[in-house]
Amino acid sequence: MTPQRLAVLGSTGSIGCQTLDIARAFPERLRVVGLAAGHNLRLLSEQIKEFQPRFVFCQGDPAQLPPGDYEFMSLEEMAAHCDVDTVVAASSGFSGLMPLLSAIKVGKTVALANKEALVTAGEIVMPLSRKHHAQIRPVDSEHSAVWQSTLGEKSTPSRIMLTASGGPFRGYSRVELAGVTAEQALRHPSWKMGRKVTIDSATLMNKGLEVIEAHWLFNVPFENIDVLVHPQSAVHSMVEFADGAVKAQLGAPDMRLPIQYALSHPERWANDALPKLDFTKISRFGFEQPDYDKFPCLRLAIEAGRKGGTYPAALCAADEVSVDMFLDGRIKFTDIPLLIDDVLARHASVAHPAIEDFIRADGWAREAVKEAVIQERLHC
Amino acid sequence: MTPQRLAVLGSTGSIGCQTLDIARAFPERLRVVGLAAGHNLRLLSEQIKEFQPRFVFCQGDPAQLPPGDYEFMSLEEMAAHCDVDTVVAASSGFSGLMPLLSAIKVGKTVALANKEALVTAGEIVMPLSRKHHAQIRPVDSEHSAVWQSTLGEKSTPSRIMLTASGGPFRGYSRVELAGVTAEQALRHPSWKMGRKVTIDSATLMNKGLEVIEAHWLFNVPFENIDVLVHPQSAVHSMVEFADGAVKAQLGAPDMRLPIQYALSHPERWANDALPKLDFTKISRFGFEQPDYDKFPCLRLAIEAGRKGGTYPAALCAADEVSVDMFLDGRIKFTDIPLLIDDVLARHASVAHPAIEDFIRADGWAREAVKEAVIQERLHC
Repeated sequence: MTPQRLAVLGSTGSIGCQTLDIARAFPERLRVVGLAAGHNLRLLSEQIKEFQPRFVFCQGDPAQLPPGDYEFMSLEEMAAHCDVDTVVAASSGFSGLMPLLSAIKVGKTVALANKEALVTAGEIVMPLSRKHHAQIRPVDSEHSAVWQSTLGEKSTPSRIMLTASGGPFRGYSRVELAGVTAEQALRHPSWKMGRKVTIDSATLMNKGLEVIEAHWLFNVPFENIDVLVHPQSAVHSMVEFADGAVKAQLGAPDMRLPIQYALSHPERWANDALPKLDFTKISRFGFEQPDYDKFPCLRLAIEAGRKGGTYPAALCAADEVSVDMFLDGRIKFTDIPLLIDDVLARHASVAHPAIEDFIRADGWAREAVKEAVIQERLHC
Repeated sequence: MTPQRLAVLGSTGSIGCQTLDIARAFPERLRVVGLAAGHNLRLLSEQIKEFQPRFVFCQGDPAQLPPGDYEFMSLEEMAAHCDVDTVVAASSGFSGLMPLLSAIKVGKTVALANKEALVTAGEIVMPLSRKHHAQIRPVDSEHSAVWQSTLGEKSTPSRIMLTASGGPFRGYSRVELAGVTAEQALRHPSWKMGRKVTIDSATLMNKGLEVIEAHWLFNVPFENIDVLVHPQSAVHSMVEFADGAVKAQLGAPDMRLPIQYALSHPERWANDALPKLDFTKISRFGFEQPDYDKFPCLRLAIEAGRKGGTYPAALCAADEVSVDMFLDGRIKFTDIPLLIDDVLARHASVAHPAIEDFIRADGWAREAVKEAVIQERLHC
């Protein structure tokens, strides 16, 4: 068996590290040939020593990396390299878009964990992937669930029901929400994830971004994508078909499951390290409607997705900066949606944008948030 | 579009009538060319007038049927006729086996609702269907759910979780169970079905038979088939794969859904007459282990399935006679498992049986139940 050759972009992040866990578990099937990271050179160095990749990228000083028989190259080069079979796009933020496009243009299989690329530029990414027969396999548990539930179906689902844990602050009052600390927000009830996505889960922005991603990945109109709060995080998402049949994928809340499936598809690999759902223990599942008033980020994201243009790019950038400020203790938890709303209201969107329009909207929104905070538009 | 030509065996039963409902809803896609019934000649006559079939069978006097341009023929002839595309095998009891085998031998697509044929003779039916490339599409909601959940998967599920409503007597004490009347047992909490299967649902025999069917249909060993009581009847069944991913099919508890899917596969047909699940209303799902002590039929069926040979044939026959006697008020609800247990304990099973062995076991078990009741072996 020839192993599948992986380039892991964002290898030191949460998804990157869990991808390497899967690679460790299946040395016969997976070979890590590329590692790309940001500034965490210590962890990247360890990963280089362990996996001995052929291609490396980092944002820091390459001289600090251990010596080895590898080539230093850009993310775009690595993503498109002919000795890479599958690109795991696990870097975070809008910067993940360019290597994704590179991979797609040469028809690579992409395990996509980066949210922003599709949220921002789905209008460009999806037609390009169809043109070049590049398969985009979702890594997010929700989209993986939708994907798994549509396998073998001839028709597009008539409805997608994305489940949400509801985050750690489900049922909080407005006053309680305003007093939430970064430490509290980083304690997610069911999923172990990176800091940015954990805060986005607490504001439900993450679910809003997932609605936009689902729209692009599965070609389902926004009005047919629902969000259901499901605190047990066992049902990872559901789809409904024209005949009323609903299909769901369930599992333990562990990101390694959807990561592994994105690599094993269409096979299923037995992995004893992965937890299983125990129906004798999880005896009750609940579903409820999300509270759009208390968690306005969900509504803001869906609205930006519906409007299209450069609104989603401005949304992502404004959210990223706002979350950073909240983690730094500069703004309140409830300021995050206020800042994003303010930025979107002032945004001059470009219809059918090109890459440079996304970059411009991204840059503009980042400045617009900072400006709003400096001008104390929020009285914070 | 050339319509799919259906022969509906058991057209006056519950599944048969609901199949005709689907045929009514899709006149462009489905054409009823064959109708076969037992003794309900009044309903069959109406059906003949409405659908004007080419082939008819009944067990009563054909002279009582309305005149028409149809040919009277045996079930086996109709099931194998070259002008039939799909056989809906919805007759009940062991007598459904012979027409099923006829259909399979000429490679027909079969929508299988008859339970006894597969439970009794799965060892013969399944290899024959593979040999002749006859597709068996399950109509039971549970097996339809398993089938739908495995679509597009390369691997056999590692586990099947059949859900059970638990019947109307979930939580009853032994004393309460002993006093249950036929009228009470015929009131199923979620599904509208025929009388025999409604009683089998109340004793959980139905679920036991479904375990045996699932074993044959999906080639999964008995130890990897679980039963989960799920009173909401929304999750129709689940499968688990080697990687721990669980897939489920959900829907409103309405038999027309799986019947339609057995006819529409691989397509999904929009049908406004069919109810949809409303997740804003069904807000809680529960799963619990079945009570094998209070509902011994479940255990008896699974044991008979594991032992194989002619045990399942004896089980089905003993159950059919016992249920008839219970409906006639001759025995108590709790006598049903006692009678079946008694018959199975006395049964001399034949390993790798031929059709005639099944017929012999069936006949023997029917007599054995009657004898046991006459001899008052149960003091009833």
